Amino acid sequence: MAMESLRQFVVALSAAAAVGFVSIIFVLRWVLHYKEGLAWDGGLAEFNWHPVLIVTGFIFLQGIAIIVYRLPWTWQCSKLLMKFIHAGLNLVAFIFAVIAMVAVFDFHNAAKIPNMYSLHSWLGLMVVTLYCLQLVLGVGMYLIPVTPVSWRAAFMPLHVYSGLLLFSSAIAVALMGITEKLIFGLSNPKYKDSPPEAIFVNILGVLLVVFGALILWIATQTSWKRPTDQTLHTLHSNGGGEDNTKVGPALSQLSDGDDAEASGDVRRRNNKLDD
Amino acid sequence: MAMESLRQFVVALSAAAAVGFVSIIFVLRWVLHYKEGLAWDGGLAEFNWHPVLIVTGFIFLQGIAIIVYRLPWTWQCSKLLMKFIHAGLNLVAFIFAVIAMVAVFDFHNAAKIPNMYSLHSWLGLMVVTLYCLQLVLGVGMYLIPVTPVSWRAAFMPLHVYSGLLLFSSAIAVALMGITEKLIFGLSNPKYKDSPPEAIFVNILGVLLVVFGALILWIATQTSWKRPTDQTLHTLHSNGGGEDNTKVGPALSQLSDGDDAEASGDVRRRNNKLDD
Repeated sequence: MAMESLRQFVVALSAAAAVGFVSIIFVLRWVLHYKEGLAWDGGLAEFNWHPVLIVTGFIFLQGIAIIVYRLPWTWQCSKLLMKFIHAGLNLVAFIFAVIAMVAVFDFHNAAKIPNMYSLHSWLGLMVVTLYCLQLVLGVGMYLIPVTPVSWRAAFMPLHVYSGLLLFSSAIAVALMGITEKLIFGLSNPKYKDSPPEAIFVNILGVLLVVFGALILWIATQTSWKRPTDQTLHTLHSNGGGEDNTKVGPALSQLSDGDDAEASGDVRRRNNKLDD
Repeated sequence: MAMESLRQFVVALSAAAAVGFVSIIFVLRWVLHYKEGLAWDGGLAEFNWHPVLIVTGFIFLQGIAIIVYRLPWTWQCSKLLMKFIHAGLNLVAFIFAVIAMVAVFDFHNAAKIPNMYSLHSWLGLMVVTLYCLQLVLGVGMYLIPVTPVSWRAAFMPLHVYSGLLLFSSAIAVALMGITEKLIFGLSNPKYKDSPPEAIFVNILGVLLVVFGALILWIATQTSWKRPTDQTLHTLHSNGGGEDNTKVGPALSQLSDGDDAEASGDVRRRNNKLDD
């Protein structure tokens, strides 16, 4: 990675981390200062776990999980270790999301509010369900060594596309949830009268969008990708005789195609393309 | 484009078009059947232009504008003509969005409802403003022939990233708008009692997400990209002696890098990378 590119990466990463941290502080201040605090009592303080767990887990941790391969200081670690960290962070994010949903169902049932009537609830449940599927397929494909190499390569563009789509959708669903909570939770003054809480939580919504935009930027900048093990291997064993810088990025488009096991197949497909 | 790839493209495109058309029918049925219809009278019928113009213009037309270069039957047309169509569709989408906003301000002012208090309004205004900036920069960069070739190439990844981010954000903001309108517009039965209108419009929200997911899939599949003019030129003049299939996709990553004027510069940068 060139020095200028590394500098830009550190700026983007610092911005994402800063915006992510501020978002977490905002959601905590929302529930602790403006709302009823946190508890597990079937009341509003239990509901409050919902936004806290979604922002810290399903948005912040999921965002970090997405870009964990991009951190240059991890490139000396084995790809397998990084896969475990990627999967582990996503698993924690999923557990946070499940507890967040349980908190809302508990609160609704205690307060005799119907469940699953809103577009927020429909899309939220879809996103968490598909996220679970993505996690199971990801572990099955990339962590269990029995999966054929050709499947791994073929599935990677879909894995990356789905991951970024689910991350974006999680933020979109959170924005709908903020909208619902500010309408239902504010009265005298109402949301439309713009009390301090309304302005404060609107800013939280904007922060979540900025965090999402930064993570998507970092994830899709191919010059910031982890170098392929194939490239390193070729450079060491062939003395760099074959030009992998050309082939590598072409095939890793929108994908983490730097999967060592997969690159053989990828190379084969590329050669066919060249014929 | 191989036959199998073409078949998959037609399936994805047909699905996107079908879901897009059904979304437009849903939003029309929403305002004409469930709500007050359409008029320009400062009342609720004027407000109703807001969702209609956003879904038809700012979501459907913007989506089509994004993938217009991917249509194989346009690859015989000049790149310049396709740029005009791309810019023209985006301009129409922008005008629809502006009229949609005017309808809401008119309605709010007549009904003495405050403007710009909700997260939906904040993010909506941001998206339309940045969309306008994207349009002006896009025309300045790619349609006005004075822009240096190096700028065009350097700016393209940002142009594509911003375009896809703004499109996704437009859908996210629409979902927040649907949430607001169902909460404010339904009473006796309320949104939480799931009357037919609530279910119907929730389905519209799901359709918009599916439409967005399909457009993003089509836009990011590099095998469906318009072949570079450089490739065609090389194939015709050099007899295909140089392998452009390798170089082309590598640099057009997440970009419409098949900009004829830019590819010279792109090639140069790539060669530097190879050194």
